Amino acid sequence: MATNITFHPGSVNIEERVDLLQQRGITIWLTGLSASGKSTIACALEQHLLHQHRFTYRLDGDNVRFGLNKDLGFDEKSRNENIRRIGEISRLFTDAACITLTAFISPYRADRALARKIHEEAGLNFIEVFVDAPLEVVEQRDPKGLYRKARAGEIQEFTGISAPYEPPLNAELHIKTADCEVKEAVQMITDYLLEKGYITAGHG
Amino acid sequence: MATNITFHPGSVNIEERVDLLQQRGITIWLTGLSASGKSTIACALEQHLLHQHRFTYRLDGDNVRFGLNKDLGFDEKSRNENIRRIGEISRLFTDAACITLTAFISPYRADRALARKIHEEAGLNFIEVFVDAPLEVVEQRDPKGLYRKARAGEIQEFTGISAPYEPPLNAELHIKTADCEVKEAVQMITDYLLEKGYITAGHG
Repeated sequence: MATNITFHPGSVNIEERVDLLQQRGITIWLTGLSASGKSTIACALEQHLLHQHRFTYRLDGDNVRFGLNKDLGFDEKSRNENIRRIGEISRLFTDAACITLTAFISPYRADRALARKIHEEAGLNFIEVFVDAPLEVVEQRDPKGLYRKARAGEIQEFTGISAPYEPPLNAELHIKTADCEVKEAVQMITDYLLEKGYITAGHG
Repeated sequence: MATNITFHPGSVNIEERVDLLQQRGITIWLTGLSASGKSTIACALEQHLLHQHRFTYRLDGDNVRFGLNKDLGFDEKSRNENIRRIGEISRLFTDAACITLTAFISPYRADRALARKIHEEAGLNFIEVFVDAPLEVVEQRDPKGLYRKARAGEIQEFTGISAPYEPPLNAELHIKTADCEVKEAVQMITDYLLEKGYITAGHG
């Protein structure tokens, strides 16, 4: 029965993969303060795209920090390496034609620029989404009590309190979560993807 | 237009994802000597599965060593870390419902056992495929002249010459590439996947 298998030598290139899977990869990099809404938006967006039968995956602290990056601490060098690796993994997923969502604070412009560069050098799509909520709002939300602990000095180098957050200067999308619902944020992102041709309507 | 988006709180679980994408993830871990045929088989298998419109991705030296793992050298500790990270990345791809192919020498049983454990602890499928060719055959092939250099002492710790290769004791599949064509190897693997229910017929 082996005769029904035919193939050409070498690997499948990006365009061939896109054509076969009817989907192009893109990394959607969410950045923002803790409790700004990154994970909530990423979860909802992932669900929405999966229900359209689009191959989608979300990278976040739960599946990366406790796996691939469990050897890393929280000092500055480790935090940079954490983001570099996430940039590299998201490149692989996007190369695989996946819609790849990353939800990490990623407070430094240089780290996010590196993640973008890793994609662009490989000819892959990357957009940055600034999930923006004022510090007073996220401190009010504080679902895990982290801001309270940071204010009390129980957590060191906490982004927004005792470590800087560098807001994006050129994010493709800017979502102010104090002023919109999750479903509106999801709609903003999917509208953008459709408008720019990163995804096509009528999938699924 | 936001009203047509609905979702439940939290993340999509594995069964929901499998149902939505009509595909279950599995890591197919190819192990064997340099020039045994791992990459050739992985490339052909990837192509075959993609032509059935299955979401498939191949991890190999080209896309991992020069990206995620470019900080690693070739000493024993780095080689272990290289395989650990590949195990973690393949876990993420398989969690995403991807058919994930890895093509690395991965000479040590302990490293391969760790890769398997990383999957099994997450409730994810993993099979090991021993891509087996005798040393005299791969030395004869020697497409990159690596065995010649290793014999001449120009490469240190080269698997099979100056470093051990520990053959799998419990690989799910054992392919003797000196005795079969690439398409037969691909057929063996796809037959196995179908027989065990890892993939379903009639996809694509």
